[in-house]
Amino acid sequence: MKDNKINGNYSFEKMKMAIAVRKDLDMGKGKIAAQVSHAAVECALKKNQKVEDWIREGQKKVVVWVKDEDNLLSLIQKGRSMGISVCPIRDAGRTQVEPDTLTCAAFGPDEDSLIDKITGDLKLL
Amino acid sequence: MKDNKINGNYSFEKMKMAIAVRKDLDMGKGKIAAQVSHAAVECALKKNQKVEDWIREGQKKVVVWVKDEDNLLSLIQKGRSMGISVCPIRDAGRTQVEPDTLTCAAFGPDEDSLIDKITGDLKLL
Repeated sequence: MKDNKINGNYSFEKMKMAIAVRKDLDMGKGKIAAQVSHAAVECALKKNQKVEDWIREGQKKVVVWVKDEDNLLSLIQKGRSMGISVCPIRDAGRTQVEPDTLTCAAFGPDEDSLIDKITGDLKLL
Repeated sequence: MKDNKINGNYSFEKMKMAIAVRKDLDMGKGKIAAQVSHAAVECALKKNQKVEDWIREGQKKVVVWVKDEDNLLSLIQKGRSMGISVCPIRDAGRTQVEPDTLTCAAFGPDEDSLIDKITGDLKLL
């Protein structure tokens, strides 16, 4: 967590994780929950300082819709170029989707304002 | 992972995690995905041998419906009495549900047949 010293006081930015889910795949709610969990677990297991801060703060998560694969790939590229932890999930495709389908991606945990630069414009599920 | 030696060969039981979600709360799909992810991350962060085996095998998850709070509490008790890792989630209640509502619980990861003793009769979401 970055400490911003302003006028002698510290302001702490909250950490969060965002998970963007492809809307065009039209997955059922159980499938979505499983895919989002895969992504969240992958990012959480990176076990760095940001993950520890995020867990201590109650592991805030937001789940948002992304239009399609191209849009999700753009977000992934943007997140990586910003140095944010990105965990894309490709499904084995046993149910509901074709094998190796990119279904969702988790971003972070990282500072709220950084995550918002990637997924801030997207609608909550 | 338990190794069962049968006729000189080892058979390995696959590991899985089940997450049971309360159907009576009528949560939206984004809310469900976030709650299920909280539970999955909590159990995954226990970082024991079972978690490592489960991750190596591709972190299989099943998401199932449980009727209501009483039924979920029974499952939690059963899981604990069997020595299975159990992570119940209570929601802060900022959206959709009352504060401190028990929304779901993750069981495992553990051997497939053990998890099925707890959630095997429940319907997939």
